[in-house]
Amino acid sequence: MSIEHAVEKLQVLLGARLSLNNSDLELHGRSETYHAPANPDAVAFPRNTEEVSALVKICADEHCPVIGFGVGTSLEGQTQAPLGGISVDFREMKAIRTLRQEDMDATVEPGLTREELNDELRATGLFFPVDPGANATLGGMAATRASGTTAVRYGTMRDNVLGLEVVLADGRIIRTGTRARKSAAGYDLTALMIGSEGTLGLITALDLKLQGQPEAVTAAICAFESIDAAVSCVIETIQLGLSMARIEFVDTASVAAFNKQSKAGMPEMPHLLLEFHGTETGVSEMAAVFGDIAADHGGLGFEWATKREDRDALWHMRHNAFYAIKQSRPGCLSIVTDICVPISRLADAVNETIADLAASGLSGPILGHVGDGNFHAILLVDPDSPQELNSAKLASERMVKRALAMGGTATGEHGIGIGKLPFMTAEHGDGWEVMGDIKKALDPLNIMNPGKLVPPSN
Amino acid sequence: MSIEHAVEKLQVLLGARLSLNNSDLELHGRSETYHAPANPDAVAFPRNTEEVSALVKICADEHCPVIGFGVGTSLEGQTQAPLGGISVDFREMKAIRTLRQEDMDATVEPGLTREELNDELRATGLFFPVDPGANATLGGMAATRASGTTAVRYGTMRDNVLGLEVVLADGRIIRTGTRARKSAAGYDLTALMIGSEGTLGLITALDLKLQGQPEAVTAAICAFESIDAAVSCVIETIQLGLSMARIEFVDTASVAAFNKQSKAGMPEMPHLLLEFHGTETGVSEMAAVFGDIAADHGGLGFEWATKREDRDALWHMRHNAFYAIKQSRPGCLSIVTDICVPISRLADAVNETIADLAASGLSGPILGHVGDGNFHAILLVDPDSPQELNSAKLASERMVKRALAMGGTATGEHGIGIGKLPFMTAEHGDGWEVMGDIKKALDPLNIMNPGKLVPPSN
Repeated sequence: MSIEHAVEKLQVLLGARLSLNNSDLELHGRSETYHAPANPDAVAFPRNTEEVSALVKICADEHCPVIGFGVGTSLEGQTQAPLGGISVDFREMKAIRTLRQEDMDATVEPGLTREELNDELRATGLFFPVDPGANATLGGMAATRASGTTAVRYGTMRDNVLGLEVVLADGRIIRTGTRARKSAAGYDLTALMIGSEGTLGLITALDLKLQGQPEAVTAAICAFESIDAAVSCVIETIQLGLSMARIEFVDTASVAAFNKQSKAGMPEMPHLLLEFHGTETGVSEMAAVFGDIAADHGGLGFEWATKREDRDALWHMRHNAFYAIKQSRPGCLSIVTDICVPISRLADAVNETIADLAASGLSGPILGHVGDGNFHAILLVDPDSPQELNSAKLASERMVKRALAMGGTATGEHGIGIGKLPFMTAEHGDGWEVMGDIKKALDPLNIMNPGKLVPPSN
Repeated sequence: MSIEHAVEKLQVLLGARLSLNNSDLELHGRSETYHAPANPDAVAFPRNTEEVSALVKICADEHCPVIGFGVGTSLEGQTQAPLGGISVDFREMKAIRTLRQEDMDATVEPGLTREELNDELRATGLFFPVDPGANATLGGMAATRASGTTAVRYGTMRDNVLGLEVVLADGRIIRTGTRARKSAAGYDLTALMIGSEGTLGLITALDLKLQGQPEAVTAAICAFESIDAAVSCVIETIQLGLSMARIEFVDTASVAAFNKQSKAGMPEMPHLLLEFHGTETGVSEMAAVFGDIAADHGGLGFEWATKREDRDALWHMRHNAFYAIKQSRPGCLSIVTDICVPISRLADAVNETIADLAASGLSGPILGHVGDGNFHAILLVDPDSPQELNSAKLASERMVKRALAMGGTATGEHGIGIGKLPFMTAEHGDGWEVMGDIKKALDPLNIMNPGKLVPPSN
């Protein structure tokens, strides 16, 4: 039993669709953030569920690690191969198997990206709402329980997947869930698989809920004198039950990074950006109500826009913020934090983070999905300074501790991977052991994405 | 090791709060529907989580079954004790531990009922939306993944619980989830516990999401010439994205049962009943739009009402339908079916069910939560006729097979218990074995509600 033997057998199974090419190995072993590369031994490009099943059976026989791979946009090292093994790249499985307009659902393969799906849906009047920013694959988004800017209205992947086809650690193929909109038929295996980061099985198809394209969309932007004012405005907006499709926060440092990149000359102050979906009159009313709330909190320069090009202009900054921030310090590594707290603690969490980063001498612009209480500080680190990297890791650790003390979570949407393992005991206590017990029950050989998410004894 | 020893030890732990009284045993061994009674050996009334933990530890030491009990409104025999053991009645654990208005959430104990919670919330402007009809406990509702009339707008228990406190099968106490609105921190143990029917642990506290009380509520009712017309109206309403808080269907037989009971003289035709939540103008607009859609489908006698007493009058029939149907045949037993199908198949599912019941000579009025594709035929059976009971069971079985063939589920909201065990393989295939593996991992002694939900080998 060895990885080597697995590779030999997989070459027979997949032929040229098993790559040992160095550039493929490196592409699949790297990370979007600060984690050191860890290459797989081979990269497989299966074409259908049966091939994935055969692949996993071979890997089970040979005790060889199996790591799912979409387009590699995960941020916590989820797709890396610290123990080697086979990276299973789903780029050849991106079909829309069935689209059912009357039921507003679709069955898709895991390698399809969300933008590809929405391009296909455009003419149907439907869309898939989850938007994590990156043009990630839908399989990867399910595996990491992705969410993003629209979760405040449409929920996360947990809320938008009806069922899954999954290849288990022994190669068996199961279907979780049904196409019914709800079910009480036993344990919720769909929810268990969503967010399991490939540690319990490989997702080979997804039944997705779709939404009707809104009749009208309005965007709004507003600057605030302080973070407290912006966040108070968010809380009041939520408590009033205003149905926002997006409500995003960017801090002064994020705006400054954007100005530096684009010469946009935006006021360097905290901003909120919103989007409303609904009827023509509905979205106008909502934007107007928000404008009143914002004014009560000292909001400045409130603008709103209904035409697509004007909306795009308003959102331009938010869409470019992550890259503008990274470019504000060329050659840097980034540690992207991802805490999520109850909304009542959001201003405290943001203010304490800013004070902490300033005291630590770190650069860390903040932006986030404040309607959910979720925000990111993007800590920019000189890769040649172990001291700075360490300082940033400690600051990230303090952010997590602060979030947990406030009743929040270490990760709102990026997942555990390797990066958040150190916080699992603090967040879950014995619950983490329970996750380990489930992992052992479903993957007794520990071949599915080993070294991630569950306790290391697994 | 024996149940007898467990009872002795529990008498020391709980004193008079362990009952061996026959009427208590019978109350906790009976079912709301057709399942034969199966009494526990004793009924425990713990007062806090630590007592529940101590109780479970004793039962683990003695390999004694432990069955959670709320108010006994489950319909598939979930609270019965086919292997004896201890029924854990949560009536002394009904505190609201914490109410956080700013975060719109509350931590409550499992014995609190949904009506008790909403009574407490009335003055706060908040409410808990899940409404399964019965005044069930919140612990029981989470354990069976309850939903009901409002799921089309607010979701099921799965969507309205942020986290749980759970006593595991070895007595350890864990917290699942956090109070953050979303998290990607590992396996979704909250979702795993919701719908697990007490087979993985006992829920001792729930963090619930609350909603703002709507500014305005409007109810509407409309009769239709045919089921197809009513269901086509539902489909169009959903596809238009009209945000209904409830959309309920009752068939001609249900209306007839209600007329017989109340002399209301309603037209004996299929009806839809709806409720809209929103702003004053919003709900009026929605009711008007629905009225237009209903008219397009030949809807008759469309009425809508905004005042509370008028709304209550419109909803009176739906609220009383279950009992009116049961009273339409005094002394009968009921088999309450619970299939849920994709919305495009709803008219087929209802029509085929009505034809099947007629051909079988069975009485089975139909009502349901049609916005989710979920409906119930209430099969009324003479308890002294084994032949009729058998015929009803076979009809129920055919309904489930029909639902599965349409991409639906055997149970939209009532759960598995004992009653739906025969359909788990057909619905889940090897997925049911996976549920069994999880059960074995978390409850290796099989003491938590044995005989329910998972494969019998467990």
